[in-house]
Amino acid sequence: MNIQEKRLAIAKMGFSDGFMKTLELSNSFRTSSLRKQCKPFIVNGKKVGILKPDVVDMMREDPDVHESCVELTKKVDKNFFTRTEAIDEILRKWKNHGCFNVALKGWRDEVYSISNSLHDDPLFEMERAGASLFGVIQRGVHINGYVNHPEKGICMWVATRSQNKQTFPGCLDQIVGGGLPAGLSVMECAIKESAEEASIDPSLVKQAIPTGAVSYIFNNEKGIYAEEEYVLDLLLPFDFKPINSDGEVEKFELLEIEKVALLVAEQKFTPSSAAVLLHFLVQHGFIDPDTERNYGEILRGLHSPIKFDDVL
Amino acid sequence: MNIQEKRLAIAKMGFSDGFMKTLELSNSFRTSSLRKQCKPFIVNGKKVGILKPDVVDMMREDPDVHESCVELTKKVDKNFFTRTEAIDEILRKWKNHGCFNVALKGWRDEVYSISNSLHDDPLFEMERAGASLFGVIQRGVHINGYVNHPEKGICMWVATRSQNKQTFPGCLDQIVGGGLPAGLSVMECAIKESAEEASIDPSLVKQAIPTGAVSYIFNNEKGIYAEEEYVLDLLLPFDFKPINSDGEVEKFELLEIEKVALLVAEQKFTPSSAAVLLHFLVQHGFIDPDTERNYGEILRGLHSPIKFDDVL
Repeated sequence: MNIQEKRLAIAKMGFSDGFMKTLELSNSFRTSSLRKQCKPFIVNGKKVGILKPDVVDMMREDPDVHESCVELTKKVDKNFFTRTEAIDEILRKWKNHGCFNVALKGWRDEVYSISNSLHDDPLFEMERAGASLFGVIQRGVHINGYVNHPEKGICMWVATRSQNKQTFPGCLDQIVGGGLPAGLSVMECAIKESAEEASIDPSLVKQAIPTGAVSYIFNNEKGIYAEEEYVLDLLLPFDFKPINSDGEVEKFELLEIEKVALLVAEQKFTPSSAAVLLHFLVQHGFIDPDTERNYGEILRGLHSPIKFDDVL
Repeated sequence: MNIQEKRLAIAKMGFSDGFMKTLELSNSFRTSSLRKQCKPFIVNGKKVGILKPDVVDMMREDPDVHESCVELTKKVDKNFFTRTEAIDEILRKWKNHGCFNVALKGWRDEVYSISNSLHDDPLFEMERAGASLFGVIQRGVHINGYVNHPEKGICMWVATRSQNKQTFPGCLDQIVGGGLPAGLSVMECAIKESAEEASIDPSLVKQAIPTGAVSYIFNNEKGIYAEEEYVLDLLLPFDFKPINSDGEVEKFELLEIEKVALLVAEQKFTPSSAAVLLHFLVQHGFIDPDTERNYGEILRGLHSPIKFDDVL
């Protein structure tokens, strides 16, 4: 079955409603009742995050840190180091007091660089587990690891997340995906995660092609996830078999692309992986403007602006 | 030179400012002073276009047609046929009286389907030359016709528009690009335009892969262009040579991808072709998140929402 036949086959499967449902979950914050109760988190005069009402309430208890619950004091909001230290102190205090336990029990001792644009100088750094409380942009890297099978056409390696994962245990994922820690480039992060999650050799990862990024905002019991995921496509050799080395993956399977599309439509993937896979399905022509009635809506859902002025 | 070396070479050329300038031109309406003076064009209760002040003034002279210069009368706004007829009459009258001559001298006797989403039932049809006066969404199809050269890597066929073209004479274009006329699918339009513009056999065009769409709104002396362009990537055989058969192309050249990137950064392409090429450069990894400092801005500029509620 060649790519055109595969595309038509997928089009006929009628995944449109499922794709839209999946995208709505990735973009759930926009239509959530929570949105209207949130306040912007302002650093250095810029909106850089979204504060839920319970976080605003907790901020009130630290008047040394903020001027109006949403803005840091002049003393704290001086430079990268003073901000980083103040936010770290607040998060550690909350954690020690057992506040926001659902989010903060996932403390990883790994920090994100916080800025509204990837190449801006970071305003501060923040423990990953706290990012959803402040609703700042969380960046990540996902790799679509696929194989061009002579009979089955494009097949993709899909990971089942370990039941021990702090977020989305048992859900499906790309072969490799992870947050972009402070100080690493997209490719450096891809190489690190590929080694940990799937034992892919760096020389192979370097052949991956960056094909864009997806962005969206969803919320769940842990907070608000404003995410920007950089996407890499990696054509893998037939004989490659991923092996997990950090215990975060339960199993890997090589699935035909229409099976992957079905699992996306059934919301079996994490919100990030689902968005990245829809991006792949569009870019490789498996979602077609002539047959997908929500083509424009899918594209818009994958490129939601996460400029906070547009959101709050 | 392999694709990674090519990507690094392009990254080092420092096209970022040029790319941003090109994108600003494609999205010029958002920042134009005209925007605040415009009114929505409302059909069947929905905003479906943008009316410039001079068009609103002219509408006033046809009180049988509108209720408030921006909304059609109940009699006219009844169904597809009544709307199509009323708009056609207005446009023909304006043309006969020499009004909006810059736009209407390009009358083609070819109509667009007007709707806010590709698969919505069209609200009415409208002569293409009038679309920029009513600021309705104009859809088109562009083909990136490229070759994978053994030494030079990815090269792309670039067309120089004829000096006789009504729009953007002498500018550069993809190998094939054109408006999506009422009644044709994206692939049917691609096949038709490929035959007319570059003599590409339909069996070859059918191998093209739809890779997404770009959207943006710009304005010029003819009016407001709210465009959504569906993109097809077509890998062409080495020995293929495009031949123009409708007189709209002055010449074709096969250029290395970094030369194409340079010409995009220098605003040598039409706004539509430039946006489609930036989309290609991103999707094929020639614009890289690690080296392009405006990566997120470029993605957002290529996927501007053209829902009129967000614009006006």
